[in-house]
Amino acid sequence: MRQIYKAFNNIGLSKIVEVSETARNTAPKYEQETGKPFIYFQRGEVGYDVPGYIRHALTDALSKGLTRYPKSGGEPWFKDAVIAHLEEDGITNIKKENVLCTYGGQEGLQLIFSLFRGCRVAGFTPCWSCMLDNIFPYADIEFIQVPLTDYEVDWNKVENALKHADIFYFNTPHNPTGKVFSEEEVRRLVALCASYNVFLVSDEAYKDIVFEGTHFSPLKVSDSVFSAFTFSKTYCATGLRTGYAVCRDPDLIQKLVRGEYTQTAGVATPLQYAFKEALRQKGARDNWISSYMKGLTERRDALVNNLDTMKISSPDGAFYCFVDLNDYIPHQDVDDRDKYLLDLLMENGIAAVPGSAFGEGYEGFVRLSFSTLSADLVAEGAKRLCKIMGA
Amino acid sequence: MRQIYKAFNNIGLSKIVEVSETARNTAPKYEQETGKPFIYFQRGEVGYDVPGYIRHALTDALSKGLTRYPKSGGEPWFKDAVIAHLEEDGITNIKKENVLCTYGGQEGLQLIFSLFRGCRVAGFTPCWSCMLDNIFPYADIEFIQVPLTDYEVDWNKVENALKHADIFYFNTPHNPTGKVFSEEEVRRLVALCASYNVFLVSDEAYKDIVFEGTHFSPLKVSDSVFSAFTFSKTYCATGLRTGYAVCRDPDLIQKLVRGEYTQTAGVATPLQYAFKEALRQKGARDNWISSYMKGLTERRDALVNNLDTMKISSPDGAFYCFVDLNDYIPHQDVDDRDKYLLDLLMENGIAAVPGSAFGEGYEGFVRLSFSTLSADLVAEGAKRLCKIMGA
Repeated sequence: MRQIYKAFNNIGLSKIVEVSETARNTAPKYEQETGKPFIYFQRGEVGYDVPGYIRHALTDALSKGLTRYPKSGGEPWFKDAVIAHLEEDGITNIKKENVLCTYGGQEGLQLIFSLFRGCRVAGFTPCWSCMLDNIFPYADIEFIQVPLTDYEVDWNKVENALKHADIFYFNTPHNPTGKVFSEEEVRRLVALCASYNVFLVSDEAYKDIVFEGTHFSPLKVSDSVFSAFTFSKTYCATGLRTGYAVCRDPDLIQKLVRGEYTQTAGVATPLQYAFKEALRQKGARDNWISSYMKGLTERRDALVNNLDTMKISSPDGAFYCFVDLNDYIPHQDVDDRDKYLLDLLMENGIAAVPGSAFGEGYEGFVRLSFSTLSADLVAEGAKRLCKIMGA
Repeated sequence: MRQIYKAFNNIGLSKIVEVSETARNTAPKYEQETGKPFIYFQRGEVGYDVPGYIRHALTDALSKGLTRYPKSGGEPWFKDAVIAHLEEDGITNIKKENVLCTYGGQEGLQLIFSLFRGCRVAGFTPCWSCMLDNIFPYADIEFIQVPLTDYEVDWNKVENALKHADIFYFNTPHNPTGKVFSEEEVRRLVALCASYNVFLVSDEAYKDIVFEGTHFSPLKVSDSVFSAFTFSKTYCATGLRTGYAVCRDPDLIQKLVRGEYTQTAGVATPLQYAFKEALRQKGARDNWISSYMKGLTERRDALVNNLDTMKISSPDGAFYCFVDLNDYIPHQDVDDRDKYLLDLLMENGIAAVPGSAFGEGYEGFVRLSFSTLSADLVAEGAKRLCKIMGA
């Protein structure tokens, strides 16, 4: 008798997607009735177009006939561009056999955890909800939550978790807090993982989006690390679904190449070409990133400067702020704080992802993404949130 | 202790990919030394460009800013185009909730078998090698081989297999034989599956490529069927990796939507737009398919007419011919007939996939793909093969 595999019963659509669908239905009515703009704070979507030079490269790829089956694991010229780019970031000695082209950062993460199906994984909370709702359950992973304390690492908790874990899932710059882990923190985590023989999976989707501090990749100081990268966030290309994974162990990458081939037969060839060019055209890239970061900085400032005295994380990187709204919730009257917040905000024209999506103990928090809207709208949203909550 | 999940140790790179890599290395030397063209008979790649109207649509999608996250499961306008197209093919009453956009037909097949991980699957052999090497082992599937006899169905064998199977994997038009199963055969298979409560997975990648007979989809006569389709073969777009899956059970599709979201976060939005247009622009589509089929027919005839008296399957659809070369192999001197053939052909400038890649009992056969090369080269390849084998 055929049976649905248990993992498919355990995965949901991401809560972020759920909130987005509700917003899609609610927003037009809200805007019509109030005359005010609906504020999309929920998704890590980017409100800019893909830079022109990358769109042109994609069109070029089609003219050049780069529409045949991709080579398993990624085109050699794609990998060469990635390797040169990693070198710019100080990650040296990577060879083609250490690189895998993936559909966004997400497929890299999904593949590595599927490779280690059934293992125990520890990681910091709050944690990107897609890991909790999708990637871990899809791979039958038991997740050990290591809460940050006031958004700082508690090393005792890390060490206790490592005793029971096979893998540590690490994300810097961090979604949903915006924390950029320091070189010292990364080195300490790498050393601890090594001492407990724990493999590190490093999610570096936001490596280029840093306002304060410096991104430090564990790839610089460890061989026992698998890093997932994406072009989605740096190049506003969430819908082009292209990324790459890097590991210094070629045998592990070779296993993932086969998994990736089995799942999709490879990343569409012209997408690989477009992002090869995204990296290669250094002048265009530098121009883009500098204007993009200027825009994101304005949005970030518009958010942070208008949340008044609310308890917020410091968004030093990525484009999220995690906000503790518990002080403004009438606890005695509210059973489900997340539902209360979600409904209250949605009624007032704000979509945001409730805290429990990011782990245990975060009811009454919300994640605000400041990437989607202009600085003016971000400011308006922040002020509106303060008003709604009575802050 | 972390462990590699067993499935990753069981999957290989497809034999087709392996032969292609060998050909890539061998061909330049062969051509230089002999002055003759190397003959690529190994891969289901298509030697035409993606039609211009589809390439333009992809560029249009970029200009329109269709570069944001795709909606889970597929864009509504993509699904609408698929539904209208299915209706043209006589498959009626399909709703959006019955459709899933996938990375080629391959991801649809990978997802459905992953949903039923660990089940027993029966299917005809010879069988597309990627199922045997990748998709079945990746999902821990035990495969029960049901050999075709002289490329005809032996219904007793089907019935015996169905007694022990949870799912039947069916592929029409058929890779590697080119067989187009008749309406009568499909109806009989559907009825038998129903009587044994066996779910049908139907791989219809080549539905538009039919030279003799008519493609008949099991979707027309059964609710217990999951069909996987792709744009790769009809539109020479193997490198654009776009397809769709259809099932009349919306709960099953909903589960796969979540799996697809988990793996890749969806099919790149501009690709969905391009293939929506591929279907919608009916005039351009009809022109394309008619000129394409004319070209493929020439290639097919060039192959079949030049294989003389060899024992071949009748390529009524798809673009493969399965050839039994056992009569020309000195059996007493040869231990490994496939290796013998592979080496002999490669030395003489022909790449072809050996028969054992397609199931047990096909040593000494080869699959010839006639889609990659011009009719002249196909003819030259066929003549050369006869000469090498002494046929």
